[in-house]
Amino acid sequence: MTGKEFSGIFPYLVTPLDESGSLKEDVLRDLVNHLISKGVHGLTPLGSTGEGAYLDWSRKKRVVEVVVEAAGGRVPVIAGVNNMTTHGAVREAAETERIGADGILVVLPSYFPVNDQQQIVDHFRTVARAVSCPVTLYTNPKFAMWDFTVDTLQQLSEESNIRYLKDASGNIGKLMSIVTALGDRFKIFSATAHVPVFVLMLGGVGWMAGPACLIPEQSIALYELACQKRWEEALELQKKLWPLNVAFHRYSLAACVKAGLEMQGFPVGPPLPPQQQLDEEGKRVVFQILTTIGVP
Amino acid sequence: MTGKEFSGIFPYLVTPLDESGSLKEDVLRDLVNHLISKGVHGLTPLGSTGEGAYLDWSRKKRVVEVVVEAAGGRVPVIAGVNNMTTHGAVREAAETERIGADGILVVLPSYFPVNDQQQIVDHFRTVARAVSCPVTLYTNPKFAMWDFTVDTLQQLSEESNIRYLKDASGNIGKLMSIVTALGDRFKIFSATAHVPVFVLMLGGVGWMAGPACLIPEQSIALYELACQKRWEEALELQKKLWPLNVAFHRYSLAACVKAGLEMQGFPVGPPLPPQQQLDEEGKRVVFQILTTIGVP
Amino acid sequence: MTGKEFSGIFPYLVTPLDESGSLKEDVLRDLVNHLISKGVHGLTPLGSTGEGAYLDWSRKKRVVEVVVEAAGGRVPVIAGVNNMTTHGAVREAAETERIGADGILVVLPSYFPVNDQQQIVDHFRTVARAVSCPVTLYTNPKFAMWDFTVDTLQQLSEESNIRYLKDASGNIGKLMSIVTALGDRFKIFSATAHVPVFVLMLGGVGWMAGPACLIPEQSIALYELACQKRWEEALELQKKLWPLNVAFHRYSLAACVKAGLEMQGFPVGPPLPPQQQLDEEGKRVVFQILTTIGVP
Amino acid sequence: MTGKEFSGIFPYLVTPLDESGSLKEDVLRDLVNHLISKGVHGLTPLGSTGEGAYLDWSRKKRVVEVVVEAAGGRVPVIAGVNNMTTHGAVREAAETERIGADGILVVLPSYFPVNDQQQIVDHFRTVARAVSCPVTLYTNPKFAMWDFTVDTLQQLSEESNIRYLKDASGNIGKLMSIVTALGDRFKIFSATAHVPVFVLMLGGVGWMAGPACLIPEQSIALYELACQKRWEEALELQKKLWPLNVAFHRYSLAACVKAGLEMQGFPVGPPLPPQQQLDEEGKRVVFQILTTIGVP
Repeated sequence: MTGKEFSGIFPYLVTPLDESGSLKEDVLRDLVNHLISKGVHGLTPLGSTGEGAYLDWSRKKRVVEVVVEAAGGRVPVIAGVNNMTTHGAVREAAETERIGADGILVVLPSYFPVNDQQQIVDHFRTVARAVSCPVTLYTNPKFAMWDFTVDTLQQLSEESNIRYLKDASGNIGKLMSIVTALGDRFKIFSATAHVPVFVLMLGGVGWMAGPACLIPEQSIALYELACQKRWEEALELQKKLWPLNVAFHRYSLAACVKAGLEMQGFPVGPPLPPQQQLDEEGKRVVFQILTTIGVP
Repeated sequence: MTGKEFSGIFPYLVTPLDESGSLKEDVLRDLVNHLISKGVHGLTPLGSTGEGAYLDWSRKKRVVEVVVEAAGGRVPVIAGVNNMTTHGAVREAAETERIGADGILVVLPSYFPVNDQQQIVDHFRTVARAVSCPVTLYTNPKFAMWDFTVDTLQQLSEESNIRYLKDASGNIGKLMSIVTALGDRFKIFSATAHVPVFVLMLGGVGWMAGPACLIPEQSIALYELACQKRWEEALELQKKLWPLNVAFHRYSLAACVKAGLEMQGFPVGPPLPPQQQLDEEGKRVVFQILTTIGVP
Repeated sequence: MTGKEFSGIFPYLVTPLDESGSLKEDVLRDLVNHLISKGVHGLTPLGSTGEGAYLDWSRKKRVVEVVVEAAGGRVPVIAGVNNMTTHGAVREAAETERIGADGILVVLPSYFPVNDQQQIVDHFRTVARAVSCPVTLYTNPKFAMWDFTVDTLQQLSEESNIRYLKDASGNIGKLMSIVTALGDRFKIFSATAHVPVFVLMLGGVGWMAGPACLIPEQSIALYELACQKRWEEALELQKKLWPLNVAFHRYSLAACVKAGLEMQGFPVGPPLPPQQQLDEEGKRVVFQILTTIGVP
Repeated sequence: MTGKEFSGIFPYLVTPLDESGSLKEDVLRDLVNHLISKGVHGLTPLGSTGEGAYLDWSRKKRVVEVVVEAAGGRVPVIAGVNNMTTHGAVREAAETERIGADGILVVLPSYFPVNDQQQIVDHFRTVARAVSCPVTLYTNPKFAMWDFTVDTLQQLSEESNIRYLKDASGNIGKLMSIVTALGDRFKIFSATAHVPVFVLMLGGVGWMAGPACLIPEQSIALYELACQKRWEEALELQKKLWPLNVAFHRYSLAACVKAGLEMQGFPVGPPLPPQQQLDEEGKRVVFQILTTIGVP
């Protein structure tokens, strides 16, 4: 399994839930089929957009089962492992691999501040050793208030199956330092719509993001332009897609993607409270932007 | 039950765990008996120090059962309800009351930023309505990156059973505004060792804190000096106890209280990884400070 | 001169300026006489409220001359020295003492971040050695993005004429650490209306602040209650004065004090642009609060 | 004059000063001649690197005179106007144009927080109206704690001579929003070594920066690769130059450029205290990086 290489557009799947918080399995299956039919290169359930931090293991487990089964090997599934404790993350990682995910993406939510790089190394290394599939490191410094240092990444790169970094910092300076220090030992996915073209220019292998649920064709087009080194056209497209993210920063992430999918006919339901649904004004803004981008 | 009034010193109980993360029930019972014998006025399991955000419900439920049973009505138990979703918090709150807690303390951990006061009102109000016992509001702005506004507190004070605020901001200016705006509708517990004397001068009713596990007699002495309006002596004592908190800021909270209790003969075990145990240097510092304060 | 002790209420004087930015000397003299007649214990021109950072030396020099002359030895004058460079601050400090100020208050404005405690020690020590009068250390962490550490204060306390700290942090924990570490080597003035009573309880010697220009009698009353150890009455008064500061946080400091003085009949003019004058709504709020406090 | 177009590499000149703080005019002339001989497209004295915020007007005026005279029309000079008050900035701007600068770059240092976009619009507009030459807007959000919003830039773009934005945010998302909203009304210079290639891809016209004093040839090469749309080669070069900036973030900006120029034989002296000179370790690091980049 470790030999498999991941690249391209991996939408961060939302987790469709009804008002009582139960998983809407059929809607999730439809979404998987829809995105694969649009040509995405992989699927990432249970990331930030997937409300991975807000769900208990029984629902998360079911999400992985449904996505792996619905994907049916057509595209790889990299499932989020999102647990505040190392014990819990190890258990979920092992189960996730057993269910059939092709890789895991490890996120560390927290309550007390995470302020020690050794603590970070220990957590991610321990989780990586619980599986044999490729591991993608992920943190969002805006949510988690910490980020990997280059030195921490260097230590973690010594684990043979830690092979990917999903970068949500969008910090190009840091990415240059990482690429210079780590060369090929890490492949980088962009996580933010600020900079996918630049991450790809720096040698990045793809773009993992929530908005790709709503604009899979445009995201794929951007990736393909980058593969063909048609950088200026890729950047034009990135600029065109950018307003969607401006809206997403004003509202919350899962709320926005879920609202957009509802508009596209996927009854994915609201985000789990206390997250708030998009209000009417928010829906109008998202609808208008999607229309401008040319999404039906 | 709503008629009961809480006041005085409420230690934030640690959650004794073995290396595999299982609850050490006997140690918890011993700790409860020890603190009651020292004269504390109540007990608060599953707060920040109790690692409430890191434990699953089965362990948290057992913590509440053990503490309620061990306290046996000798002092009131205000148990933490600490869940990222409103659904989850409602369930835990109702169960906690059913087990016999005298009150609940509601904390809102999060992954996405909490940036809307309406969202905050909705969450705490919904949880409060799930119980009939008194509710204590709590947030730690250092951990959670948000704080209650005076206006939010005013809205929440309209719920008949939201009756206490545990203030971790230590922001005296804001406390003056709260006291002026809300008068008697909220009783305030200090949560930080910076300012318990000043909170008590402002009309606060007590001090809820992790360090009281280690220094219950001194904490009670401070409270009693304040009750007798011997403010200068109370402040002298606060200054003497302060270095313990300086150490606690350098290391992590649960790690420090757990290390101190181990020194006092309570084998409460380490905090849940990725939280780190106190290193040897940290233990030495905590030991030295406890000795200076006069704790055996 | 070093033998003189400062204590009590030191209003931070505004700098009266006309629309072209010229000093209104007569208004400044009137203000000095007014405040002395109200009983203030000293005067502090050219602090933050005095726009010390925004004025060139020729105007600052004239401010010191006018205030020293108008005070005429009735109360001590501690003048602000506010210059981005050590060379400049040394020159201004020496001149300020030569003109006849009884002490200086040293502030360090900056453009590049100040991020090294050695740099801070060097600056304040060099300035202190340029004078023989008592030196008050001051920084406002909200404006300057840095604060003195306890260790830095300890180093600076070795200079024989660095004798006072004007604390704008309002951080009671830190103040307890300072008082414990430095004992009598530093006398502390409170700079913020959050906590003057508590600073005085901790051994502080006074309150230096902009609002005392508007409410000198109330500020003095608070100080006197504290001297008589009537702590609860002092705190009641602090709570009553607090709303004025809430307004001041919403608008800018010099703008608020200048607007309030205009209401009291002192034509001190607007703050220097790009600082903005209080708008009509702001003036209404300040007027209402002053009326509630009982200021004519 | 307004018809002139600026583009390319504009080094931020340091201000050579001796130990007493006096301008070393000959060294400044030598530096100007050196950089022009290397092919730079313009010169920017009195920016951040030029310690514009730390100098009084008499020295700043002399800097402008020396640079304008030494440049002798060979390349345009865009001089920094760096004054905390609008009155002061207006005076300096007019004088700077009168001396013969081809453009001005307006920076707003501050003491009180700048927290109102109207205040920002008023300041920059008033300064722009005091001159007829092209105006470059500049703020460094890391130093100044504020940034232009897209809406503020839109208001400012209505002034006919506000024509350039030097972006120090390196925030690609915001730059995409600016370029989309303002099109050709603003030309953008990159101010940071994180992202010059990407700014140029987005339509930017050049790179203004302190490091170009030390690596003019490499900076020009990067710019020329971008002009020829050889984006991947340009990015390779950007990555190679990046470590110099990593060092610059660890130490302070003027200190680093000054130390590097001393190594290259320009006795520019130390930065004005309390800024600190590079220590031996810092000099070693900068020397090593320059050597790696291939600078003699």
